[in-house]
Amino acid sequence: MSVQSKKVKSDIEIAQEAVMKPIKEIAEGLNLREDEWEPFGHYKAKISLDVMKRLQNAPDGKVILVTSINPTPAGEGKSTVTVGLGQALNKIGHKTIVALREPSLGPTMGIKGGASGGGYSQVMPMEDINLHFTGDFHAITTANNALAAFLDNHIHQGNECQIDTRRITWKRVVDLNDRALRQVVVGLGGPLQGVPREDGFNITVASEIMAILCLAKDLTDLKEKLSNIVVGYSFNKQPVTVRDLGVQGALTLLLKEAVKPNLVQTLENTPAIVHGGPFANIAHGCNSIIATKLASKLGDYVITEAGFGADLGAEKFLNIKSRLGNIDPKAVVIVATIRALKMHGGVDKANLTVENLDALKTGMQNLQKHIETVQSFGLPFVVAINRFITDTDKEVEYIEKWCEEKDYDVALSDVWEKGGEGGIDLAVKLLRVLEKQEGNFKPLYELNDSIEAKIETIAKKVYGAVAVDFIPKVRKQIEEYKSLGWDKLPVCMAKTQYSLSDDPAKLGRPEGFTITVRELRPSIGAGFLVALTGDVMTMPGLPKKPAALNMDVDADGKAIGLF
Amino acid sequence: MSVQSKKVKSDIEIAQEAVMKPIKEIAEGLNLREDEWEPFGHYKAKISLDVMKRLQNAPDGKVILVTSINPTPAGEGKSTVTVGLGQALNKIGHKTIVALREPSLGPTMGIKGGASGGGYSQVMPMEDINLHFTGDFHAITTANNALAAFLDNHIHQGNECQIDTRRITWKRVVDLNDRALRQVVVGLGGPLQGVPREDGFNITVASEIMAILCLAKDLTDLKEKLSNIVVGYSFNKQPVTVRDLGVQGALTLLLKEAVKPNLVQTLENTPAIVHGGPFANIAHGCNSIIATKLASKLGDYVITEAGFGADLGAEKFLNIKSRLGNIDPKAVVIVATIRALKMHGGVDKANLTVENLDALKTGMQNLQKHIETVQSFGLPFVVAINRFITDTDKEVEYIEKWCEEKDYDVALSDVWEKGGEGGIDLAVKLLRVLEKQEGNFKPLYELNDSIEAKIETIAKKVYGAVAVDFIPKVRKQIEEYKSLGWDKLPVCMAKTQYSLSDDPAKLGRPEGFTITVRELRPSIGAGFLVALTGDVMTMPGLPKKPAALNMDVDADGKAIGLF
Repeated sequence: MSVQSKKVKSDIEIAQEAVMKPIKEIAEGLNLREDEWEPFGHYKAKISLDVMKRLQNAPDGKVILVTSINPTPAGEGKSTVTVGLGQALNKIGHKTIVALREPSLGPTMGIKGGASGGGYSQVMPMEDINLHFTGDFHAITTANNALAAFLDNHIHQGNECQIDTRRITWKRVVDLNDRALRQVVVGLGGPLQGVPREDGFNITVASEIMAILCLAKDLTDLKEKLSNIVVGYSFNKQPVTVRDLGVQGALTLLLKEAVKPNLVQTLENTPAIVHGGPFANIAHGCNSIIATKLASKLGDYVITEAGFGADLGAEKFLNIKSRLGNIDPKAVVIVATIRALKMHGGVDKANLTVENLDALKTGMQNLQKHIETVQSFGLPFVVAINRFITDTDKEVEYIEKWCEEKDYDVALSDVWEKGGEGGIDLAVKLLRVLEKQEGNFKPLYELNDSIEAKIETIAKKVYGAVAVDFIPKVRKQIEEYKSLGWDKLPVCMAKTQYSLSDDPAKLGRPEGFTITVRELRPSIGAGFLVALTGDVMTMPGLPKKPAALNMDVDADGKAIGLF
Repeated sequence: MSVQSKKVKSDIEIAQEAVMKPIKEIAEGLNLREDEWEPFGHYKAKISLDVMKRLQNAPDGKVILVTSINPTPAGEGKSTVTVGLGQALNKIGHKTIVALREPSLGPTMGIKGGASGGGYSQVMPMEDINLHFTGDFHAITTANNALAAFLDNHIHQGNECQIDTRRITWKRVVDLNDRALRQVVVGLGGPLQGVPREDGFNITVASEIMAILCLAKDLTDLKEKLSNIVVGYSFNKQPVTVRDLGVQGALTLLLKEAVKPNLVQTLENTPAIVHGGPFANIAHGCNSIIATKLASKLGDYVITEAGFGADLGAEKFLNIKSRLGNIDPKAVVIVATIRALKMHGGVDKANLTVENLDALKTGMQNLQKHIETVQSFGLPFVVAINRFITDTDKEVEYIEKWCEEKDYDVALSDVWEKGGEGGIDLAVKLLRVLEKQEGNFKPLYELNDSIEAKIETIAKKVYGAVAVDFIPKVRKQIEEYKSLGWDKLPVCMAKTQYSLSDDPAKLGRPEGFTITVRELRPSIGAGFLVALTGDVMTMPGLPKKPAALNMDVDADGKAIGLF
């Protein structure tokens, strides 16, 4: 196949031409026993949690985190690199599993059209993964909304828990982009239709239940976490939990299959565990602990990723997920593209095809900051430059020289066009880094630190802020949380993904800035406190021309318009 | 196992002790080719629509409809008899498939705790079927709500179709009982959050998309029907359709797996196709045409059921589903219980254990009317008396004598306690009826009849009304529908299920009553006009103590509290 003909193929065309192995072969390749997995169609499976019990004393494979610079409209291709790197490691003889998040239908129908890697580095079957997959998100949606229905019914039926309807924090969800549901009033129509109150819907990936599913260690832990969800406050301002409503059993029942990780494969038949997908702003942005730990028991290497840039996804992967899940990551891959670095250097999206070494030089400072962040966690890293056709030789040379001077390991990645073959350089450099530098991972803060100290640590060490401003409302919340015993939880920062600062317009490496914490939200079930540094969108809207307008299915049931 | 120990077992206990065959064996038993089905776990499968193409010229098995008297709080056990009869026919050597509806999560979490038959006549795996099953309802929920999001986005982005937000008829759905969502206001919060308007949620089984999925003949027909959905009206009062919004492709894509029928098995390994489940009031209350037709190609007998009593479910199965799907049913089983007949004779639920031949005699008139209805469709029938332990010998004798005098075939059914064995009498009598009387099925009205005439035919011939009152609003709607060319569609009656009349308090066989048609609603996608004869609940509420409070899952993932 010529390079030219490849160029015009869309992700879905490449995917639909792929030859997948029956999932049975993939499961057997991981030495899963026959009763340890269940098929969902011929190319997807759910893995029983019993595997973890059988393998609890088996050695752990090396967990490698893939993160990136601050995302730009130019695109970085983090998932694509994750898949490609996994394929490359398998190609050179290392038993490797990729562990990814499940995509949300909202962005798929809205803008993205899909999110399962790209080009010759995709997870398969991409149509299924981008649509309903094995139903995990639907189960989470249902559990979330069942809780809302139980809550409103509790109030309607006499309100034994004395819930103050003005202080309900639990929202309903849909796994769609639907701005009209952001702010609603429910319970209208008179005394038979419930109690009127203000309410709102989030997208499913923003549900606390999504975060819980991804942080639970097993079914028992899942139920415990669900029990701890705070749904609102009583008239005397005490938290009301799921345990108070007595529905934790029903919610766990609704999630008993969703908590099992999903096994699929990449275009090159590398095993992939795709499970969970919380937002990386008001939640922690990583696939499930269960999936990552399971992958580490089944493979020698696990390549996993976290949402947005290293300031959000990686920080939370390391300070929240790894800590709560006892995961000991061994190295980090930091993905950047020359296009995105030039945007961080001040170039408009329209002018990215023009060589611009000055802008690249300025933009490198964004990468530099993320490298320092990874180093502060005690972890070795490789910089992965995800190649685009418009990158000039001089631009590539500049980056290589920049890394050489600083003694940073760097690799060019061509996994979109060449699959695993295009990631071998990256794979080899990663293995070299792992060999020469023992990972010495340590979270950045202690759980016993005060809420203020935790936030300050993240803001200063990860974002490069000079100070943190807690507005008076937040100071008051901190006092309340202390009195409720919530101050020993990790902090989940909600910040714009586009900038290291809390101002999305400040690209590159802003300096001298202050981070303003405007609100705290307790995710007691998930086990973290969310600190909001600005408006955080928990329900996206659709664009004027949604991707859905181009979607279709032919008479044979073949999907059209996913990409 | 002693009778006594059986008595205390719940449905879920019986189900969890059952030995299921791998679904592969069930599929192979139906001579499905390996590429014609996909596993969903080890005990569920989705069947490819390609089977219908391969078997289009194969002979059709005999379709038998199971219906009942008007339901009462005493319970009739229609699904249980359907499953038990299928098991019985297989037991005596006839290749039989049962074709059922999928249960809705709302009632499961609310009151019912499950809906997949009962006792030793259940479809399996009951936990899966009662929870998320193969995700069909979630796909329908998603497609329904995606359409709502596209619609509100269309308005927000400039409203090219000039949709009048006061005349939007498309509602959002959840597959839950959630009264607080019946009447809501969406789009609050200012110009960035959409356009404020009144809205409301239905339960998923009331979605027109559920009805469409169940009436579609194939994927192409599904897309055509989705395109025809009327979502509301423009400022100049013209209908706005999904085709106008251009999202029929995306909706079809979201439903491409849900449209495939699900294969499972009963407790005695009788193949069961469980697919679709529209309401029997504002929709037609039957499983999918695709499932019923497929079952008739794969089995010599298909036992299927329709919602509520014969006045609603059977009438619609015969006038709507069979007509649109070219299904030629051969006989009807009318299920009754002595308890329920006594309620129709005026006995309170508390006094049902007392022998009461007078009440039984009066209550028999309800059964009598449904028998006449079935006869008016040209179909032979068997009366199935579903036995309860409290039935007295005299009461049973009374019914047997009553049937004998009228030359009606009657059989006692004990399928709850004895499975297929308890349905052999019924099976034998059904076969005898099929032998002695050629089915001569014909719908009750012609599509070319006027809207008024169709409704009058149903009201008089099926309900026994003396007249139909169309309120002025409806007269006006009829004129509008005529001008829009909608008057040639079948009519889907929305009436209380508890009475033959439109007054739920009138049990037995009310006479001299008038049916009042209060509103018409066009389901142009599904292909019928809904005629409402009273308030129809399209979003149930939860009781004070929802069934969910008793649900749980143990540490091994075993479900508790479904029944």
